[in-house]
Amino acid sequence: MLDTQVKNQLIKIVGVDRYLDRLEEITCYAYDAFVEEALPDAVIFPKTTAEVSELLKIASRHKIPVTGRGAGTSLCGASIPIRQGIVLCFSKMDKIIEVNTRDRYIIVQPGVVNGDVQKALEPFGFFYPPDPGSMNTSTIGGNIAMNAGGPRCLKYGVTADYVMGMEVVLASGKVIRFGSKNIKDVTGYKLSSLFCGSEGTLGIITEAILKVMPMPETVKTLMVTFDNLDNTAKAVTDIIGSGIIPVAMELMDKLTLNAIEDVAKLGLDREAQGSLLIEIDGVKEACEKEIKRIIEKVRQNGATHIQEAANDLEREKLWKARRSAYGIFAKLAPDIVTEDVTVPVSKVPQMIHKIVEITKKYELKMGVLAHAGDGNMHPMIPADRSNKEEWKKVEAAFAEIFQAAAELDGTLSGEHGIGLGKSAYLPLVMNKDTIEFMKTIKQAVDPDLILNPGKFV
Amino acid sequence: MLDTQVKNQLIKIVGVDRYLDRLEEITCYAYDAFVEEALPDAVIFPKTTAEVSELLKIASRHKIPVTGRGAGTSLCGASIPIRQGIVLCFSKMDKIIEVNTRDRYIIVQPGVVNGDVQKALEPFGFFYPPDPGSMNTSTIGGNIAMNAGGPRCLKYGVTADYVMGMEVVLASGKVIRFGSKNIKDVTGYKLSSLFCGSEGTLGIITEAILKVMPMPETVKTLMVTFDNLDNTAKAVTDIIGSGIIPVAMELMDKLTLNAIEDVAKLGLDREAQGSLLIEIDGVKEACEKEIKRIIEKVRQNGATHIQEAANDLEREKLWKARRSAYGIFAKLAPDIVTEDVTVPVSKVPQMIHKIVEITKKYELKMGVLAHAGDGNMHPMIPADRSNKEEWKKVEAAFAEIFQAAAELDGTLSGEHGIGLGKSAYLPLVMNKDTIEFMKTIKQAVDPDLILNPGKFV
Repeated sequence: MLDTQVKNQLIKIVGVDRYLDRLEEITCYAYDAFVEEALPDAVIFPKTTAEVSELLKIASRHKIPVTGRGAGTSLCGASIPIRQGIVLCFSKMDKIIEVNTRDRYIIVQPGVVNGDVQKALEPFGFFYPPDPGSMNTSTIGGNIAMNAGGPRCLKYGVTADYVMGMEVVLASGKVIRFGSKNIKDVTGYKLSSLFCGSEGTLGIITEAILKVMPMPETVKTLMVTFDNLDNTAKAVTDIIGSGIIPVAMELMDKLTLNAIEDVAKLGLDREAQGSLLIEIDGVKEACEKEIKRIIEKVRQNGATHIQEAANDLEREKLWKARRSAYGIFAKLAPDIVTEDVTVPVSKVPQMIHKIVEITKKYELKMGVLAHAGDGNMHPMIPADRSNKEEWKKVEAAFAEIFQAAAELDGTLSGEHGIGLGKSAYLPLVMNKDTIEFMKTIKQAVDPDLILNPGKFV
Repeated sequence: MLDTQVKNQLIKIVGVDRYLDRLEEITCYAYDAFVEEALPDAVIFPKTTAEVSELLKIASRHKIPVTGRGAGTSLCGASIPIRQGIVLCFSKMDKIIEVNTRDRYIIVQPGVVNGDVQKALEPFGFFYPPDPGSMNTSTIGGNIAMNAGGPRCLKYGVTADYVMGMEVVLASGKVIRFGSKNIKDVTGYKLSSLFCGSEGTLGIITEAILKVMPMPETVKTLMVTFDNLDNTAKAVTDIIGSGIIPVAMELMDKLTLNAIEDVAKLGLDREAQGSLLIEIDGVKEACEKEIKRIIEKVRQNGATHIQEAANDLEREKLWKARRSAYGIFAKLAPDIVTEDVTVPVSKVPQMIHKIVEITKKYELKMGVLAHAGDGNMHPMIPADRSNKEEWKKVEAAFAEIFQAAAELDGTLSGEHGIGLGKSAYLPLVMNKDTIEFMKTIKQAVDPDLILNPGKFV
């Protein structure tokens, strides 16, 4: 509970309408898409950078934890206020400030939804490449804080590759601006990238300049099934080895494919052991040539069924199937943990075998989705958190999965982040001095440790 | 001069053969490609990370400045040991540790020359995109420290976009490792990007994991001239607006074109006011279609002459012309300053007019080269530094050029860095608190300020 005097100071800044602290008002801010929960003391909706600055000055003075929140879609609990304090919710800082496709940028406030950025660019024939699964809900502020990825990051890169500049309010309330409207800018430290993926632990993002890309003239999409998971993964490296970087190569295992088919009824091959949803884009003639080469490569790897989307409708149907996987799995049990380990792409088959082996050992249901082209895998385990015994198994299984990923030169997260869920596992992939180094930076920038405390740093 | 006891400690680590401090041995380490000079106390050639760590422990203990050095090609004086101390030269840490095109990475020591990375990848049909003008001399360590760019960064991005992981020795001698062999990795702060472009002020890079790309099947190159500089620049934005991101779009003004023609005798149009060297790559059919669209766009902008390279030889000739510009200008006077301002691409014509106006006012010779697709411009001024009056003019002109760039929402450097040359101008593009923030990070990471002191932070 915040002290009444502090509460009044905070209300003085934003007004009583944008300050919530009654249980029924703040309950949903105790959650995001991860399994844990923690109730904040207050939820505040700033409208301007100046307000954020004033709020942080007060928080600093009284050492009150501050957790930024976009749409609360974090899969690792990054937006859960685990040490209570204030949640700063950015739903009222949701303006698109400038669209400038001639100079290839868009300037937005942090609360703008990713999908709305896309909509704003569409009339100009441009798009913003990062496309997290949550893109129709999640905000740019959250995307940046987590360095969000998405299926098409295989070709286009992740959020950090598109943030040209930022305005950030520090814990002290000071406002810094770095980067610029210039695609190439090496003036000073590359601070945009430091804040990208910092999970709200270094500062609060209040504005961002994002790089945008011209839309490709053609998109082609293939659904391919295999009777063998190793061949599915091998097809992925063969395609890249042949000189093609597709927009996306999404791998699904048998369980996932069948779960989707149960609901979506797309006529997918239920006997397939693995499948790939492959998308390419670019000039029409190039796509036609590349799709032929891709078909050759998947055939060489024993593809059992190849389906090319004939039009946008069919394409959308295939993607809908892919995107619905998480929702379908989430319905199988009261809770779901979607993990996010990444391994070098050639090790995807080994890693999948490991995941299957581990989850079998613990008698857990498990489906695998993978952005296979970059080795980023999402094993999903539906389970019941209130069933303590089962939940222990889930946790043990994930610990072993992380260990296995580390042994294969992999890492703990490709795009979801570390947040609450995985900080304990950092030593698997980082030495003590490196973790210490991150803490040194954190301590220097946020000496009272008020920004999103209790997370990875 | 280093204290004899310290000298002996340093020699104990690397041996007497890899420790230089006689004037005739160390003189050339007082220079890089910038105009200033400063003699170090000693030049040391480490061979291992462990040696670098031991050397830094001693430097820290005695607060001796340490400046890392690759090939000394910095155009902003980043490798000049302006506060003396030790130069760590990485020419003996030049091994390629692993080439793995299946997982799309190469692991190298810092002293590996950029061009040698390309050569190692070529047999596998892969390449490493960043291509600074110095690529046949400059090292990966230097490229990373400066976040080097190059012509083809328009399509492919700069060095920071290709560094997946790093090993770094901190001022304390501690060795940290971050990032991984995984293309997608959001485990912890994105430290690779913090060190990219840090100009040796935060740590000494001892190993890097670089992302590589499959080579495109076709490359096409066009040389186009215009009778008007505004149209030249407008063609650039029109091409991007039509949905094409070429590999490179290199703009040269009349003076530069004529200087090249004097030497290279390529039959370039001497009356042209502006020219563009445009390169695209990809699938053959796509290139053919795109080149038609590009020709349409340059014609709409009044192109006077369009020459397509018929083969690799002709292509190489055109690039040779472009690459020789710096050398040709450098011969016009005892010294040359090549600047590196960047503006949003639509403001390139305005910025060129400004540069012409300013250099005319000061009666200076000046040629402009620009990576026009990303607004990165290199005005080159040949002059005589020993002529104090002329040199004052050069400095005054550049101060005005930086001011003009800032007024056009531009920045101080697109790819050369800040180094010695431009730290005084940081306030033009960054507020006080942002500069202070960089110093906070520097101070936390290198508390005795021994790493490349006297530079931008």
